[in-house]
Amino acid sequence: MSLVVVGSFGLDTVETPFGRREEVLGGSAIYFSLAASMFTTVKLAGNVGSDFPESAWRTLDDRGAVRTGIRVFNDQPTFRWSGRYEGDMNEAETLRTELNVLAEPPHVPEDYRGSDFVFLANMGPDTQLEMLEQLQGKTVFADTMNLWIDTQRENLVRLLQRLDGIILNDAEARALTGEANLIRAGEALLRMGPRVAVVKKGEHGSFLFERDFHFALPAYPTSQVVDPTGAGDSFAGGFLGSLAEMGELSPAKLRKAMAFGTVAASMTVERFSTEGLEKAAREQLEHRYAELREFVHFEA
Amino acid sequence: MSLVVVGSFGLDTVETPFGRREEVLGGSAIYFSLAASMFTTVKLAGNVGSDFPESAWRTLDDRGAVRTGIRVFNDQPTFRWSGRYEGDMNEAETLRTELNVLAEPPHVPEDYRGSDFVFLANMGPDTQLEMLEQLQGKTVFADTMNLWIDTQRENLVRLLQRLDGIILNDAEARALTGEANLIRAGEALLRMGPRVAVVKKGEHGSFLFERDFHFALPAYPTSQVVDPTGAGDSFAGGFLGSLAEMGELSPAKLRKAMAFGTVAASMTVERFSTEGLEKAAREQLEHRYAELREFVHFEA
Repeated sequence: MSLVVVGSFGLDTVETPFGRREEVLGGSAIYFSLAASMFTTVKLAGNVGSDFPESAWRTLDDRGAVRTGIRVFNDQPTFRWSGRYEGDMNEAETLRTELNVLAEPPHVPEDYRGSDFVFLANMGPDTQLEMLEQLQGKTVFADTMNLWIDTQRENLVRLLQRLDGIILNDAEARALTGEANLIRAGEALLRMGPRVAVVKKGEHGSFLFERDFHFALPAYPTSQVVDPTGAGDSFAGGFLGSLAEMGELSPAKLRKAMAFGTVAASMTVERFSTEGLEKAAREQLEHRYAELREFVHFEA
Repeated sequence: MSLVVVGSFGLDTVETPFGRREEVLGGSAIYFSLAASMFTTVKLAGNVGSDFPESAWRTLDDRGAVRTGIRVFNDQPTFRWSGRYEGDMNEAETLRTELNVLAEPPHVPEDYRGSDFVFLANMGPDTQLEMLEQLQGKTVFADTMNLWIDTQRENLVRLLQRLDGIILNDAEARALTGEANLIRAGEALLRMGPRVAVVKKGEHGSFLFERDFHFALPAYPTSQVVDPTGAGDSFAGGFLGSLAEMGELSPAKLRKAMAFGTVAASMTVERFSTEGLEKAAREQLEHRYAELREFVHFEA
C-alpha cells in the first residue's frame, strides 16, 4: 500500500566517540524513507535547497521512491543540524540548528492525496495539521518533540485527536502526558486520541500501546553503536513501511512492524549518517528480524 | 536443588512519591529469599540484631526456608538503610546507611556446604571470597555494587574468576568493564571469568550474556511502581530460585529463569518493602510469566 512521508531532508555535522562527519545526509524524512522504501513505495515531501546533493537520492530512486513532493529552493540553503554524542550516546547535544528552507511549509502534490498510510515526521504541530488536511491519508501517524510539547501544546492536542498513531520517545511521552510511569503514559496517550502509541527508548527498546494489548521489545543487540542520529526515524520507517506492506493494523501485524522498526534502527546506528540504511538490503532486515525473535524467545 | 543465600537483612526507611515507610523489612537477602523461596528451599545466612522483628521470618518459614545461618547479635543493632525516590524512580538517593551488624562477617553452618546453588548478595568482595571458600557451592552467582568496583577492584576481579555467574546493573557493568556499549560490557564480563552475566536495567528490563547466546527481556509492564527497593534482589531471587528448581544452566532454562526474575521483580515494585513478595503466590508468578511471553511475542 502507498506511504507518504512529510518531513525534513538535511545536512548534518556529527561528532561521536567514533569520529566526525561534516555535511552528511540527515533529516527525519531521509532516514524514514530509506528504511520504509525497503518495504513499500514511499512518496516523499519536503523542502531542500539547491545545495542538497543530487547523489542523496540515488538509493531512494533505486528503491522506487517517488519525489515529486520535494520542493527545491534556489534562494535558501538546505536545513542543517550539528550535534555531538558522548559516553553511552543515548542523547545528542545539539550544537547548531539552521532551519533555512524548513521555514517554508512543504507542498504536497495532488496525487499524494488519499494515501493509505501517511507519516508526518517531526515538524511544528501547526504544519502537521495543515499537512494532515492536505493529504487526507487513510491511516496517519506522526512524530513530535519536546519543543512542540512546550510551545504548541494546544495544536499538538488537536493533532493527536485526529491521528491513528503517535510515535515518540519516552521523555516526550512523559512530558506530553505528565505521567512518570511509562505504562500510564502510554495509556494516557491513547486517551488523547490515537489508536496506537509507540514509545521509543533508544538503546532500551520500544513499547507499543493499543486499546487491546501492550507490546515491548528490547533494542536489537548491536555492539557497534557508531552514530545514533536518525535511529528513531529509521525505527518509524521500518515500522510504517512494513505496516504499509502488510496493509492492516491488526495486533499481529503491529507486533511484526515493531520488530522491523527495531532492526531498521539497528542498521542506522552501526554506521555514520545514512550509510547503514543505504547499504542494508531487505534480506539483512529479515535476518535480523529472525535473530531478534530468538533473542527474546523463552519457552512456556 | 538446594540454594544458599548470604547477604543483608535490614530495616529500611523509604520515601517515594507514593508515601513513606519507616523501619520496614529490607536488605538484599530478604528480597532474594522471599522470591527464591517460591521455587525452592532457600538456606539463609547473614547477621541481624536482636531488634530484628521475629515476624520478619513468618513468610519465609511458611515457604520452608532454613535459617540456621542467621546470627543474632545482642550487642549491635540490625543493618539500616534509608533512601528516597523521585521522578521516574529509577534510582534511589541514599540518605543514610548504618552497617551495624554487617561489620561482622557472616557465619555459615557446616550443613550449608556443597549446596547446588549459592548466591552471594551484595557485600564486599573480600567477604564474598571468604563465603565462597566456606560454602564450596557447586554453582555460584554473585551481585556487586559501584562502591566495590571503586574500592576493591582487585578482590572483585579475583571473585569473578571463580564465579559461575555475575548479576549486576547496567551502570555497574559499564564501570567494571570500562565499556560504554552494554553488549560489549556483557562480553567483557564473560572474559573476566563467569559463564553467565546478567545485567539488570531497572524499568528497562534485563540482559543475559552467555558464551553461546544473548537474551533480553523488557521489564514486566506494571503501571503501579510504588517502591523499587529490592527489585534487583527480587530479580536475582526469581532467577536463581527457578534455576535451582529446574536444576541446570542450559540456554532454555536460563531464558526461563530470566522471565521468572522479571516477574518476581514486578511483584516487589508494586508495593512498599517486601509486601508484594509476601503476598505473592507461585500461581501469580506463573500468570505473569505467561503474560510476559505474550507481551514480547511476535510471529515469524
